[in-house]
Amino acid sequence: MQPLRVGLCGLGTVAQGVLEVLSRNAGVIARRAGRPIVVTRVASRRLRPEVDLHGAEFSTDVVGLAGHADVDVVVELIGGADVAVDLLRTALEAGKPVVTANKAAVARHGDGLLRIARAQGVPLLFEAAVAGGIPIIGSLTRGLAANEVEWLAGIINGTSNFILTAMSDRGEDFGTALAEAQRLGYAEADPTFDVEGIDAAHKLAILAALAFETGFRFDAVYTEGISRITPEDIEYARRLGYRIKHLGLARRTPAGLEVRVHPTLVPDTHLLANVNGVMNAVLVHGNAAGDVLYYGAGAGSLPTASAVVADLVEVARWSACRNPAEGADIGDASASAPPAAPELPVVAIDGCTSGYYLRIPSLDRPGVFARVATLLSEREISIESALQRAQAIHAETRDAWVPIVIVTQPVPERVMNDALAAVQALPEVVGEVVRIRVEDFGNA
Amino acid sequence: MQPLRVGLCGLGTVAQGVLEVLSRNAGVIARRAGRPIVVTRVASRRLRPEVDLHGAEFSTDVVGLAGHADVDVVVELIGGADVAVDLLRTALEAGKPVVTANKAAVARHGDGLLRIARAQGVPLLFEAAVAGGIPIIGSLTRGLAANEVEWLAGIINGTSNFILTAMSDRGEDFGTALAEAQRLGYAEADPTFDVEGIDAAHKLAILAALAFETGFRFDAVYTEGISRITPEDIEYARRLGYRIKHLGLARRTPAGLEVRVHPTLVPDTHLLANVNGVMNAVLVHGNAAGDVLYYGAGAGSLPTASAVVADLVEVARWSACRNPAEGADIGDASASAPPAAPELPVVAIDGCTSGYYLRIPSLDRPGVFARVATLLSEREISIESALQRAQAIHAETRDAWVPIVIVTQPVPERVMNDALAAVQALPEVVGEVVRIRVEDFGNA
Repeated sequence: MQPLRVGLCGLGTVAQGVLEVLSRNAGVIARRAGRPIVVTRVASRRLRPEVDLHGAEFSTDVVGLAGHADVDVVVELIGGADVAVDLLRTALEAGKPVVTANKAAVARHGDGLLRIARAQGVPLLFEAAVAGGIPIIGSLTRGLAANEVEWLAGIINGTSNFILTAMSDRGEDFGTALAEAQRLGYAEADPTFDVEGIDAAHKLAILAALAFETGFRFDAVYTEGISRITPEDIEYARRLGYRIKHLGLARRTPAGLEVRVHPTLVPDTHLLANVNGVMNAVLVHGNAAGDVLYYGAGAGSLPTASAVVADLVEVARWSACRNPAEGADIGDASASAPPAAPELPVVAIDGCTSGYYLRIPSLDRPGVFARVATLLSEREISIESALQRAQAIHAETRDAWVPIVIVTQPVPERVMNDALAAVQALPEVVGEVVRIRVEDFGNA
Repeated sequence: MQPLRVGLCGLGTVAQGVLEVLSRNAGVIARRAGRPIVVTRVASRRLRPEVDLHGAEFSTDVVGLAGHADVDVVVELIGGADVAVDLLRTALEAGKPVVTANKAAVARHGDGLLRIARAQGVPLLFEAAVAGGIPIIGSLTRGLAANEVEWLAGIINGTSNFILTAMSDRGEDFGTALAEAQRLGYAEADPTFDVEGIDAAHKLAILAALAFETGFRFDAVYTEGISRITPEDIEYARRLGYRIKHLGLARRTPAGLEVRVHPTLVPDTHLLANVNGVMNAVLVHGNAAGDVLYYGAGAGSLPTASAVVADLVEVARWSACRNPAEGADIGDASASAPPAAPELPVVAIDGCTSGYYLRIPSLDRPGVFARVATLLSEREISIESALQRAQAIHAETRDAWVPIVIVTQPVPERVMNDALAAVQALPEVVGEVVRIRVEDFGNA
């Protein structure tokens, strides 16, 4: 049978992984795809003579790749949202199916790209764009196809999870843990994208679009990173029965969609609390399936290549049952083309509801806790648990002050903002109140 | 667009769940399937006037269901391996796609049924047969399509997991925990199928067939249940850093496939050790993706219905891209038709390799531990950890004897059998040696 001929764009670690997986697992891939999958052309702006191209033709003309007749499907692994987006558009406009691992391109330009894909009747697949080797995209669009997704929550940035795990396991501060992540190759020299939550926001925008059948709304994702998390907060959270994780959360509410990325206290018995190091996990709550959790490697050459090649298998299956004579638009048979549903409004962060962890640095005087509790209760904020006169950690014992640590029950953020302003204004409060959101996944 | 017309066989809890999910989530299902999915006929030997059939025609003629022209796809939810198998054959031979949740039928007759399905060019889908709401079948055949699966391990019987969790959390014995499971509806009046591992063996046979592209080999699965697990063993295992879980394990080895279901010590930090109550989880190790874990509800009306309806969505997509004019056999485009690969031999249990937990009831005399250690070491069995003169639990302190508890490194079972015979013959050993397998998932 005629092989599926792949034009591979980019020659970095994921692309090298794709070449390796297609070669090493050629047998099983051909059986599952119905025909062999071979890379006929590789295009990269940078020559890498050390990489074995397994007989593929090499070119530095990246955007020209889609034009070749011996390319049935384009795999875009350049990354970023400039040249890569041109390539994606060009390939789709040429009527070629496209597979990409490019989360920035899909999160920012997914609506436009899918519009071209549907108009051309070809699939645009991006399983590798979220959570590496975990087949979460296919699970949302196929495995959970019978469900209205009510919410999802994911640890979708391995760098942040590695840093928080190191801080938690060894009491390190953020800078030390970041330096270790950089030494091990888990963080870039400029770590902003990962530690400030932008990468996770890209992925959450994609998950939310598929789960809630809405558009790709990267700009609407509320985004907060982990750079201000301290070992003290990790320790107090632990004493109250929580771990601090960097989560992406998307939830359908009567007011609209909540889509937010931020550090979050998670009950320490919850599976997400026990996802450590660079691993990723996504928990999806469907209205029929209930909780379903997916766990695996979120990055790395072979895991990401596994997802790219799974998409190529989908393209092969798609092409096998295409009926060109009828010119049928079967874009919706692809794993990733969300059917058009009404656009849901995104709820601003101060309209979101969650529990809150509060660390309130205050003078060690009688009555401070009661005063704080009163300010909360006047706004109908219930205290879930607290460390009164918490045994202070490290340098906090100087100057005769102690932290008051409180975890509240869920409350709208604007109510909490109002309460925090009042607490911050108390004369006994001697430093900035730290506030971290809490999520109990409906199990409180 | 013409709806996909479903003939539903059976009217038990899962069938009622299917009716409810198709009705409640009709909008999202139609968008993902490309057209509406409606139940036109329901057949059940038992009348259930209390169930809302949403306008479907009712009949007690179960096997005749497939013959109706207004049935595009048959959903078999009768269960068991007699009438249900006749129905499955009849429907497939009539050229109707079939969706089933029947693990016994697929595990015992899957090869023959898939042969008919392929000959007829129609899909036979059974996502709901394994692990309820967890889309594990689709993940093996699609999401991980690029991988050679090296091994998989699953908690795939919720009843056994509930009982072991209760025994572990509250120190209950097997009988007490079983009675509680029965009271809560998690175990049948005759619990044999669940607690002796037969249900798990059905599911493992299905997972192994798909993961390793081989036949359905229920008869070759080594099967051991949980009825002989004691609170003492759970407690000693805990002191050594393990939880006891009932696992299905399938592994490709140079000698062939290991497929076995038995109680297993799992390191307590491992995610599988933290899957509790009736929940299920399956861990798949692919040679590209690495470890991928799926977690969710393994049973229940709506979760199982979620899987059945996901398969119906697949049937709708399949029918949308079928090309009847060419009569193409596109069985392989279905989610569950494993392409023919050479049959792998199944390794007998005494050829399998694992670590072992041993509890050796012995007289409290000097030198017993050394004698046991010598017998092991003569057979090149290494001790991983041990409780010498373990602090005895409950009644074991009578008669001046103590248990010696040992966890070994992995060793072929026939070597362990030989060692155990020698240990059992020691004059100081005063009772039957308990042996439970240990799995560290390559992380030792």
